Amino acid sequence: MAPRTVDVPALVDAARAGRPRAVARLVSLVEDAHPALREVMATLVPHAGRAWVIGLTGAPGVGKSTSTTMLIRAFRERGRRVGVLAVDPSSPFSGGALLGDRIRMQDHSHDSGVYIRSLASRGHLGGLSAATPQAIRVLDAAGFDVVLVETVGVGQSEVEIAGLADTSVVLLAPGMGDGIQAAKAGILEIGDVFVVNKADHDGADATVHDLRHMISLADRTSPGIWRPPVVKTVALQGRGADGVMEALDKHRAHLEETGELLRRRERRAAEEIEQLALERLRSRLEAVEGRSGLAALAGRLVAGHIDPYAAVDALLAGTDT
Amino acid sequence: MAPRTVDVPALVDAARAGRPRAVARLVSLVEDAHPALREVMATLVPHAGRAWVIGLTGAPGVGKSTSTTMLIRAFRERGRRVGVLAVDPSSPFSGGALLGDRIRMQDHSHDSGVYIRSLASRGHLGGLSAATPQAIRVLDAAGFDVVLVETVGVGQSEVEIAGLADTSVVLLAPGMGDGIQAAKAGILEIGDVFVVNKADHDGADATVHDLRHMISLADRTSPGIWRPPVVKTVALQGRGADGVMEALDKHRAHLEETGELLRRRERRAAEEIEQLALERLRSRLEAVEGRSGLAALAGRLVAGHIDPYAAVDALLAGTDT
Repeated sequence: MAPRTVDVPALVDAARAGRPRAVARLVSLVEDAHPALREVMATLVPHAGRAWVIGLTGAPGVGKSTSTTMLIRAFRERGRRVGVLAVDPSSPFSGGALLGDRIRMQDHSHDSGVYIRSLASRGHLGGLSAATPQAIRVLDAAGFDVVLVETVGVGQSEVEIAGLADTSVVLLAPGMGDGIQAAKAGILEIGDVFVVNKADHDGADATVHDLRHMISLADRTSPGIWRPPVVKTVALQGRGADGVMEALDKHRAHLEETGELLRRRERRAAEEIEQLALERLRSRLEAVEGRSGLAALAGRLVAGHIDPYAAVDALLAGTDT
Repeated sequence: MAPRTVDVPALVDAARAGRPRAVARLVSLVEDAHPALREVMATLVPHAGRAWVIGLTGAPGVGKSTSTTMLIRAFRERGRRVGVLAVDPSSPFSGGALLGDRIRMQDHSHDSGVYIRSLASRGHLGGLSAATPQAIRVLDAAGFDVVLVETVGVGQSEVEIAGLADTSVVLLAPGMGDGIQAAKAGILEIGDVFVVNKADHDGADATVHDLRHMISLADRTSPGIWRPPVVKTVALQGRGADGVMEALDKHRAHLEETGELLRRRERRAAEEIEQLALERLRSRLEAVEGRSGLAALAGRLVAGHIDPYAAVDALLAGTDT
């Protein structure tokens, strides 16, 4: 047997039986865009769709890790199995910081109901947005009741990833102008639940007030429209967990009552399919580059002898026949 | 004449004559991916290639805006014309915050040698990476000697954008664990010059020491290999500008002596062509979606009746004939 051969059915069975190493191997196949991924996804799909996907986003310094820890504990107290994906290049828990994973895992290392994993990019722009829904599917099919996706909420890509969750939680901290600015820059639209962490710091009430005001300005007051609650926490001390869980439960009920859950999942699936299709188109493009010479075209562009669109014409000349 | 018609040659002439409104209109055409963009780029290309493109990246809170202001002043003292592109969704100066632009422009509103503009995404993942080199070309062809591209350095996409500069400056601040983590997560590789801002705060020397140590670990000691300098500033007080300018000049000389300038520009051009090609492939995809029903495929994926790769097969069935 070739060393790279993957026994997909056995691996999926092991992951579904709760073996963390099998789950880890599957997520690695996703990260690597491994050739077996197609078979992996086909095997997982019938078992997926049960997990509640919760996105957790916020600027560096607002307390994402402690908040994640608090939520893990709260869900574990309810007997829920929790998988965590950290999609955050700046986080100590991702960007290749396997060490970070290990540190975090120590808290839960004797608890098979918790799995924490950072997600590395495939190395292409958009790589994470293609990999994230696949990694979510791995944890979902492996039987985790809740999949927490932790992202840093300052970049366009992170905003789009967070938008893929069933429920998006936006974390802020008092007095962080950046936080409010980030909110203005698009995060306000994606938040289903807002959490003001470090509520024991000065300015917490002002931040809550500002957020509620901004939310009230948005046109969400019609019946049946979700009005995002704003709750306060001190995640480091575990304070406020009940309030967050209550807000999450309410949103979950709203999702189901309104049919929004299915709509969001179909949007997530559509985005996943589109990203995969673009990946495939990209590899077709790369196959063609050798022939028509991307490097040569780039040299001519720098020299001012061709414009970028004419270069694209030349590059794609071979792809659409 | 239809209201949307753009007189491209007149607009380019006006921009090259130093009229800021013409420059602004051209950048807006880039942001909107306006149909006239092809003609715009073809008209600009022969005039481009003179500007020194400097990327400025750092996590929120390190002092990007004050550092940009400091650099603008330093270049203006040398008689250089400076264009600034803020590519940062979390910045008060971008993300649609036209107000921020106006506030910043006030400092330079009587100085036609300075132009500051935030760059909004085209709304697609990867939209900024396609638009950024085009917006750089606008400022370049409009006669700015220096184009500063300000990005927040925490996301994958921002790292890639910063990597497109001739010279990349990475900003850090003392005691910001996030900064060092971000450095570890990839920013260390892209920095040509490291600036530790807020050098009057505790821990500045330790941050400088840490950075120098990390740089020394990288294998950059061979002759002809650039070893990134680490300089200290207090941008708010304008302190340290000379050190930054000296480091920038040295890097510029290195780029020219080694031929690295041309290599970087060819890489930037190749990336631009590839992004435009992917945009075009994406629109072909969207043209096809209507027929083969992305929404229907997404629904079947959510229901577990199709796997994502089979959905891509179905989606792309019409595109490769």
